[in-house]
Amino acid sequence: MISASIAEELRSIVGDEWFLDTPEDLATYSYDGFLPEYLPDGVIIPGNTDEISKIMKVANREKINIVPRGAGTNICGSSVAREGGIIMAFHRMNKILEIDPEDMCAVVQPGVVNADLQREVASYGLMYPPDPASMFVSTIGGNVALNAGGPRGVKYGVTRDYLLGLEVVLPSGDVINTGGKTLKNVSGFDLTRLMCGSEGTLGIITQIIVRLVPLPPAKATLQAIFSSLDDAAITVSAIIGSGIVPTTLELMDRVVLDVIRDYGGAEFSDKADALLLIEVDGEEVLVEEQGKRIESFCKERGAIEVQRAKTPQDADRLWQARRTAFGAVASLRPNCIVEDATVPVRKLPEMLKKIIDLADKYQLKIGVLAHAGDGNLHPLIMTDLRDKDEMARVDKALDEMYEEAIAMGGTLSGEHGIGIAKDRFMPLQFNRSAIEIMRGIKRVFDPNNILNPGSFL
Amino acid sequence: MISASIAEELRSIVGDEWFLDTPEDLATYSYDGFLPEYLPDGVIIPGNTDEISKIMKVANREKINIVPRGAGTNICGSSVAREGGIIMAFHRMNKILEIDPEDMCAVVQPGVVNADLQREVASYGLMYPPDPASMFVSTIGGNVALNAGGPRGVKYGVTRDYLLGLEVVLPSGDVINTGGKTLKNVSGFDLTRLMCGSEGTLGIITQIIVRLVPLPPAKATLQAIFSSLDDAAITVSAIIGSGIVPTTLELMDRVVLDVIRDYGGAEFSDKADALLLIEVDGEEVLVEEQGKRIESFCKERGAIEVQRAKTPQDADRLWQARRTAFGAVASLRPNCIVEDATVPVRKLPEMLKKIIDLADKYQLKIGVLAHAGDGNLHPLIMTDLRDKDEMARVDKALDEMYEEAIAMGGTLSGEHGIGIAKDRFMPLQFNRSAIEIMRGIKRVFDPNNILNPGSFL
Repeated sequence: MISASIAEELRSIVGDEWFLDTPEDLATYSYDGFLPEYLPDGVIIPGNTDEISKIMKVANREKINIVPRGAGTNICGSSVAREGGIIMAFHRMNKILEIDPEDMCAVVQPGVVNADLQREVASYGLMYPPDPASMFVSTIGGNVALNAGGPRGVKYGVTRDYLLGLEVVLPSGDVINTGGKTLKNVSGFDLTRLMCGSEGTLGIITQIIVRLVPLPPAKATLQAIFSSLDDAAITVSAIIGSGIVPTTLELMDRVVLDVIRDYGGAEFSDKADALLLIEVDGEEVLVEEQGKRIESFCKERGAIEVQRAKTPQDADRLWQARRTAFGAVASLRPNCIVEDATVPVRKLPEMLKKIIDLADKYQLKIGVLAHAGDGNLHPLIMTDLRDKDEMARVDKALDEMYEEAIAMGGTLSGEHGIGIAKDRFMPLQFNRSAIEIMRGIKRVFDPNNILNPGSFL
Repeated sequence: MISASIAEELRSIVGDEWFLDTPEDLATYSYDGFLPEYLPDGVIIPGNTDEISKIMKVANREKINIVPRGAGTNICGSSVAREGGIIMAFHRMNKILEIDPEDMCAVVQPGVVNADLQREVASYGLMYPPDPASMFVSTIGGNVALNAGGPRGVKYGVTRDYLLGLEVVLPSGDVINTGGKTLKNVSGFDLTRLMCGSEGTLGIITQIIVRLVPLPPAKATLQAIFSSLDDAAITVSAIIGSGIVPTTLELMDRVVLDVIRDYGGAEFSDKADALLLIEVDGEEVLVEEQGKRIESFCKERGAIEVQRAKTPQDADRLWQARRTAFGAVASLRPNCIVEDATVPVRKLPEMLKKIIDLADKYQLKIGVLAHAGDGNLHPLIMTDLRDKDEMARVDKALDEMYEEAIAMGGTLSGEHGIGIAKDRFMPLQFNRSAIEIMRGIKRVFDPNNILNPGSFL
């Protein structure tokens, strides 16, 4: 609980209207894309770096927890006040401060919505490649804090790869700058990338310099339906092995396709056991040729139907199934747990099989949607959190799944983060020394452990 | 000094022949690509991770400094025993352990020479993009420790961008693994990239997983000569602004060209005030078209001569001037200080002018070779370290140069590192809080300060 005098002090920093503590407001900020609810003691919405610095000085002095939060679309519970304290939200700090077409970078505040930045830079003929599926909601600050990935990762990488520099407010209230506008920068430790993916545990990101690339002039979008999941998985390997680097290579399995069909999201043949959504971008002539090759790869490997978009509207239609997927699976049972196991691409068929086996073994409804081109799987566990027996089986399935992912040389999280969702699995991937190093780094930044405590460390 | 009993203990770990302490051996390891000499107390050449772990346990217990060293081609003095101690060299750990064409990655030991990896992966139709100009000598371990850049940075980025995972021996002797084989990986803090560019101050890198990309099937190499440096700089902006992303965009100024000509390295017109070496790679049809556009850009902006390579031999010939540059400038005066100021690309003309002004103001011979496409300048100060008066002027010029680079939004080092060459400039780029954070991180990894002490922290 925050005392009346502290609340007063915080209000005096941001203005009365930007410190919230009514039950309705607190409830709104009690959960994020992950499920459990933790009621915070307050919500503060600062307007600038200076205010954040002042807030952190108070919080550090009073040992009040602060949990920074973008749009709350992370799926690992990294933006909830698990141990109480104040949620810091950034929707006032949502300005694109600069777009620099010559140096191909942009300077933004953390609350800028990803899609807004995408749209703005497109008008300069530029692209900001990281595109979490949540781009219309999620913020650049949140994307950086979670090192968000998304369906373009196979060609363009992740948020980290487009991050040039940051302004950060430390828990002490001190402000530091990391990186800068230059592509090459090796002065001192790479604090920029240390912040990226740190899930709000090290500092408050208050300004972000991102790298932009030329907007590709053309793209080709294809959808291939397979009557066998194995055929689809083999086609993924064939495409990646051919030297083509697709922008997007998404896979959905029969469970997901059935749910989408029933939901009315899209039409597929009853024989559909898997769907690949494939996109390539670049110069017109190249895209044309690669599109044809991909079409052949799919047909040669047993696709029962291949469609290629002829117009942007066509492409939108082909994306329809993928875009509907989360809504469809969420509608089936009271809850849907979106997992994030990631394995080397060559292990994809094996991991798909493992997940199907686990669903069978533990009598669970699990569909798979995968960013297949980079081995990033999203098992979607359709379940009911209130059903204790079923949840015990879910936990067992998750244990086995992550043990298997790590055994295959994979990782606990490709793009969603660890948060409170997967902290118990950290020892699977890291030995005690590595975890101690991480805890040591946390103490350097945040000796009083006030920033997002109770998250993965 | 190392006591006889400690030396004996170290010999028993690696074998007699792999611990060196004769005066000749120590002298060989007393300097690197930067100039001052510091005689180490010994040189140890471990054969595997286990030996390194044992060595570190002894060093940590006895508080003996350990300075890891690849090929010593860094140009910042980050691999010399500035405060005494033992140099750890890696030429026994030079194996490519695995090339995985399906997952497009390779696992290597730190002592693998960059060009050896390049050649090996090319036989799989793959490329390891980071190409420091020192690729025929420098090692992947050194490249990672310094986050090496090079002439392909403008398109392909730097070492950091191709790093997937590491095995690291901590000063305690504990071994940790960071990252893995997957492109997407957001579990815990990004220790992989924290190690990258840490200049041997945090841990010993014993194994490296690098990401590979498809080898581009075609490339075009062009050389353009300008009678005005301004015209060349404007052409750089025009190319970058056009949406073409060249692989390489190198600039050399009149001073460097004159030295190369006198050295017999290459022939140019007397009117040559600047040279651009430009390379694009990718699919044949694209490279063809981009080559033509670049040719036009150069001609339209006042190039007095444009050559385009018709054969690989032709391309080698066009690279000749660039490859000769360092040898040529090194021959002119007893010493050549290679600087590494980096600015946003749009500031390149201004920075070039500043350097010419500084040469004039302080009566110094300074040529410029720049990775112009990414704003990474290498002012080459041809000087004589024994001339105290001249060196005082060099120092003043450097002070002004780095103040200016930082004022332009640039960085102290684009790709060479800070080491002992530029530690005095760190406060120009980082405030006290940022430097304290870096020092804190150092203490977490290395509480006894035995790893490369006296380097930039």
